[in-house]
Amino acid sequence: MPNEDLLTIGQRTYRSRLLVGTGKYKDLDETGAAIAESGAEIVTVAIRRTNIGQSPDEPNLLDVVSPERYTILPNTAGCFNAKDAIRTCQLARELLDGHNLVKLEVLGDQKTLYPDIPATLEAAEALIKDDFEVMVYTNDDPIVAKRLEAMGCVAVMPLAAPIGSGLGVQNKYNILTIVENAEVPILVDAGVGTASDASVAMELGCDGVLMNTAIAGAKNPVLMASAMRKAVEAGREAFLAGRIPRKRYASASSPLDGTFF
Amino acid sequence: MPNEDLLTIGQRTYRSRLLVGTGKYKDLDETGAAIAESGAEIVTVAIRRTNIGQSPDEPNLLDVVSPERYTILPNTAGCFNAKDAIRTCQLARELLDGHNLVKLEVLGDQKTLYPDIPATLEAAEALIKDDFEVMVYTNDDPIVAKRLEAMGCVAVMPLAAPIGSGLGVQNKYNILTIVENAEVPILVDAGVGTASDASVAMELGCDGVLMNTAIAGAKNPVLMASAMRKAVEAGREAFLAGRIPRKRYASASSPLDGTFF
Amino acid sequence: MPNEDLLTIGQRTYRSRLLVGTGKYKDLDETGAAIAESGAEIVTVAIRRTNIGQSPDEPNLLDVVSPERYTILPNTAGCFNAKDAIRTCQLARELLDGHNLVKLEVLGDQKTLYPDIPATLEAAEALIKDDFEVMVYTNDDPIVAKRLEAMGCVAVMPLAAPIGSGLGVQNKYNILTIVENAEVPILVDAGVGTASDASVAMELGCDGVLMNTAIAGAKNPVLMASAMRKAVEAGREAFLAGRIPRKRYASASSPLDGTFF
Amino acid sequence: MPNEDLLTIGQRTYRSRLLVGTGKYKDLDETGAAIAESGAEIVTVAIRRTNIGQSPDEPNLLDVVSPERYTILPNTAGCFNAKDAIRTCQLARELLDGHNLVKLEVLGDQKTLYPDIPATLEAAEALIKDDFEVMVYTNDDPIVAKRLEAMGCVAVMPLAAPIGSGLGVQNKYNILTIVENAEVPILVDAGVGTASDASVAMELGCDGVLMNTAIAGAKNPVLMASAMRKAVEAGREAFLAGRIPRKRYASASSPLDGTFF
Repeated sequence: MPNEDLLTIGQRTYRSRLLVGTGKYKDLDETGAAIAESGAEIVTVAIRRTNIGQSPDEPNLLDVVSPERYTILPNTAGCFNAKDAIRTCQLARELLDGHNLVKLEVLGDQKTLYPDIPATLEAAEALIKDDFEVMVYTNDDPIVAKRLEAMGCVAVMPLAAPIGSGLGVQNKYNILTIVENAEVPILVDAGVGTASDASVAMELGCDGVLMNTAIAGAKNPVLMASAMRKAVEAGREAFLAGRIPRKRYASASSPLDGTFF
Repeated sequence: MPNEDLLTIGQRTYRSRLLVGTGKYKDLDETGAAIAESGAEIVTVAIRRTNIGQSPDEPNLLDVVSPERYTILPNTAGCFNAKDAIRTCQLARELLDGHNLVKLEVLGDQKTLYPDIPATLEAAEALIKDDFEVMVYTNDDPIVAKRLEAMGCVAVMPLAAPIGSGLGVQNKYNILTIVENAEVPILVDAGVGTASDASVAMELGCDGVLMNTAIAGAKNPVLMASAMRKAVEAGREAFLAGRIPRKRYASASSPLDGTFF
Repeated sequence: MPNEDLLTIGQRTYRSRLLVGTGKYKDLDETGAAIAESGAEIVTVAIRRTNIGQSPDEPNLLDVVSPERYTILPNTAGCFNAKDAIRTCQLARELLDGHNLVKLEVLGDQKTLYPDIPATLEAAEALIKDDFEVMVYTNDDPIVAKRLEAMGCVAVMPLAAPIGSGLGVQNKYNILTIVENAEVPILVDAGVGTASDASVAMELGCDGVLMNTAIAGAKNPVLMASAMRKAVEAGREAFLAGRIPRKRYASASSPLDGTFF
Repeated sequence: MPNEDLLTIGQRTYRSRLLVGTGKYKDLDETGAAIAESGAEIVTVAIRRTNIGQSPDEPNLLDVVSPERYTILPNTAGCFNAKDAIRTCQLARELLDGHNLVKLEVLGDQKTLYPDIPATLEAAEALIKDDFEVMVYTNDDPIVAKRLEAMGCVAVMPLAAPIGSGLGVQNKYNILTIVENAEVPILVDAGVGTASDASVAMELGCDGVLMNTAIAGAKNPVLMASAMRKAVEAGREAFLAGRIPRKRYASASSPLDGTFF
C-alpha cells in the first residue's frame, strides 16, 4: 500500500479504511479481539444501546475500545426522527467530552432500516449548525448524496444493501456515480456480507467501508475481521493499481461494449 | 490466517494460495518484482513462449524466478492438440531436470482459448501414465472436473471466464459444485480481473487461484500483485470464518429462499 | 390472460399494463404506429417538449395519439424544481380541458436524470391539494415510495435504472419491497432496455411498466413495441402463474438458501 | 412477428420457437391443455418414462399430444451412457414408424443432470451414422457445441442451468459465443424458471427454448404456458428489433465500456 494513501475525515487522518461497529458480539472480549484484528481506527458505537458511561456501574465498552487508541464514532442507530437523532448526538458529545464527530442515521422503518431521507437532511442541517462533524448514513441516490455533501457533511455513507442483510453492493452504478461526483469521502455503510463485498465497494472507488454484522455475525468473528481488513486493502490497492478492462476474450481488440451483462 | 491452513498439491505443500504466470510483463525486472510482491510460491511458465534454457544465449526467466525459491510449473499454453501438449511437458521435464509437475492446457480455439475437453482428457491420461503430476486447465463442467480427478490429476483448474477476459467467475454454481465434489485441490484458472474476483473464487471454497493477465496487465502490476495476495487471503479467511447468511433484512427470520436473485 | 386482470389507476381502469412515451421517434407516423403496436392505453407526453395545442400551427401529437383512444398522461419531463413542475401540470390541465391525471417528475440533475426527492415530495403535495391525480416518478427507495403513497399519489413509479440507460432493474430487492408494501399501483418507470427487462419488472409484482427510449430508440421501433407488449403480458402472467422455486438442482429437496448468488 | 421468421430444424419448419416437454403434469388433461396454450409445435417425450405405445393397455400420451398436430421429439432422459441412449432412440424410431428426429441426452450424474460430454459425442456420432437427425443436449462450452455441429447434429441445445433448477441463463457470454459461431439452430435446453429467463435466451440470439419443469411445475401450468409463449416471442422480436445500447445515462455519448458490471 503506498505510504501516502491516507483517509482524511474532517480534521482527522487515518491509515485504515475499514470502520467497524461494536454490536452483536458474544462478549466484550470478543468485541475487543475482533476490532483489534480488523485494524480499524474508527469504531462506531450505538449510543442508545451501548454503555460508554451512561450507566456507571455496568461494563463500559470504552474499557475494550479505548478512545486513546480508536476514534470513537457515536451513531444514532435506533432513531426514527430528526429530533431523537439530534439529541442522541448531543448526549454523545457530553459523554465524550466534546468530541464532535458523529455518524447520523435517521431510520425510515423497522423492517428495512432504510434511512428517512427528509428527516436525515433535516437532522444533518441542524447538527452541522451545532458544530458537529457529520458522517451521514444515506440510501444510494446520487442526488441525495450530493445534497448531503453540499450541506457540509464530512463524509457520505451510502448503503450497499439493507443493514444486516449481507447482500453486498446492490447497485454498483449508483455507488460509482456517487463516488465520481464526490469531494468528501464516500464510505459504504451497511449491507456487506463477506470479504469480496468489501473489495467490490473499494474497487468502485469508495474511500472506506463500515460494517458490523458481517464481522460480529460470522462463525469466527476474529478471523472474519482479518479477512475484512485484507479485503478492504485489496480492493483499495486494486482500485489504485488500475485493473485490466473486461473483454469477452483476450484476443478482443476492445473492451466490452454493448454486449456486456 | 490459521498457521495450519496449507495447500497440498501432489507431494508438495504451500502457504500461498495464489499462483501466478510470467507473461505480458514489461521486462524481467517487473516480472520478478510483481511475482515477489504476490507472495506466490508456484509460478507457471509457458514453455513454448518463455526461455528457461532452450535458448542459452538469451535472457532466462529462471534468473528472476529462481527454481530454488519457487516451484516452477511448466504449462502447455499454445498447444491445440494432445500430442503437442504431451511433447511440451516432456521437453519441460528435460529442461527442469526431471521435475514432473505440469499444468496441462489443450486449447480448443484461438478466439476463446477454451479447453478442448476430449483432447485434454486424452493428454491427461497419457501424461499420468508417463509419471507426470498433472494440474489440468478445464472448463467449469462438474462432470468433466470429476473425471479429471478420477483419472489421477493432482489438481483440477476450472476457468472462471475466458483467459485474459477479466470477467471474474461467470458461473458460481458450477464452481461451487466442482468444489463440493472434489477430493483434490480446485484452483480457479483464468478469467480473474480484479481483487474481488479472486476473493469470490476463494469464498466459493476453491483451494487457490491462478492468474497472469490480471496482474501483468494492470497499470501498476506490482501494486496489483499485492492486491491479489491480500484478496486471495481475504477470500480464504472469509470462507473459513463462515460468513453471515444473505437475508433481505436484518429482521428477517430466515435466510433468503425463493426470492433471491 | 385472465379477463378480470385489470389495472386501476385512480378512477380509470385499463387492460394494458404497458405505458409508453412519445419522444425520440423519427416522425409522428412512426410514433403512432409504434404506440398502436404496443397496445398501450396510457400515453405519456412531455408537455414542455411536445405540441399538444400550445403551438396551433405546428403538427399536433394528438393527431396521431387521439385522446379518444388513449389516456393522455402529461408529464413534467425537463422540470428541475417543484414550481416548474406544478406550473407544467396546470398548463396541461388547461390544454386538456380539465384532465387531471398527471405524471410528476422533478429531476435532480441533467446527467443522471434522477429525481430530486424533497422537491418531488413538495410538488406532489401541492398538486394533490390542487385536485390532481398524481402518478409520481421516484427513485427505488422503499421509504420514499411509501411516503408518496401515504400523501395520496395514485401510482408510484420507481426507476429501474437511469432514464434512457437501458440497464434494466438494478435493485430487484428494492422494487420487490416497494411492491410488497404498496396499496397503490407500482409502475416501473425508466431504465428498461429490452423485453426481458420489462418481464423482470412484472415478475417482481409491479403493476405496469412505462418506457419510451427502449421502443423509440430500437432499430425497429414498431417491432420492439410488439416485443414489449408481449413481454409485459408474459411477465404479468408468469407472476400470476406462480413460478417454480430456484434450486441448485432438480433433485434438491428445498429451494436455495444461503448459497444463492 | 415478421411472417417469414421461421425455425428450420433438419427438414422441418416451424413457426413457434418454444419447445416443451410432457413430464410432471398432474394428469394428461393438464398436459394437453398446457401444451396447447404454449403454442409449441415440437413436444419432447422421455421414452423411458412415458407411454407412447410401449404399454398398450395404459393411457397413451399420444392421445393428448397428437403426432398429427405436433412433432413428437423422443428424448433419452434417464440415459447415463451412450449405449442406452442409442437403444432408446432406436426404440423410439420403431414406436413412431420411422420418425428419425431425436433429442439426445446422455447424463453425467443423478445430482446435477449435467451431460456426459464424451459419451454424448460418442452417441451423437453413432446416431448420425444410423441416419438419425440429432438434436443434442450439451453443456454451455462453445468448443463442444461447435464439435457437435461439425459432426452433423441438426440442432445444438446448451443448458441455461441445471435441469429443473429454474435458475435461468447462468453464463450469457457462453451462450452468446455459441450462437455467434453456429450454423445450426441453437436452442436453450434446461434451466429456465420464469418468463424473463426465456426472453433472455432469445435476446442472446438463440433460435428457440425448450422447457418442461418451468411450465409443469408452476402453480398454474396453463397460465405459465401462455406466459412462456409470449416470452419467447417477445425475446425473439426484441432480438430482431435491435435493442438500445446499455449506457450509464441517457446523456452518455457512448455505450458502457470498461465500467459495466
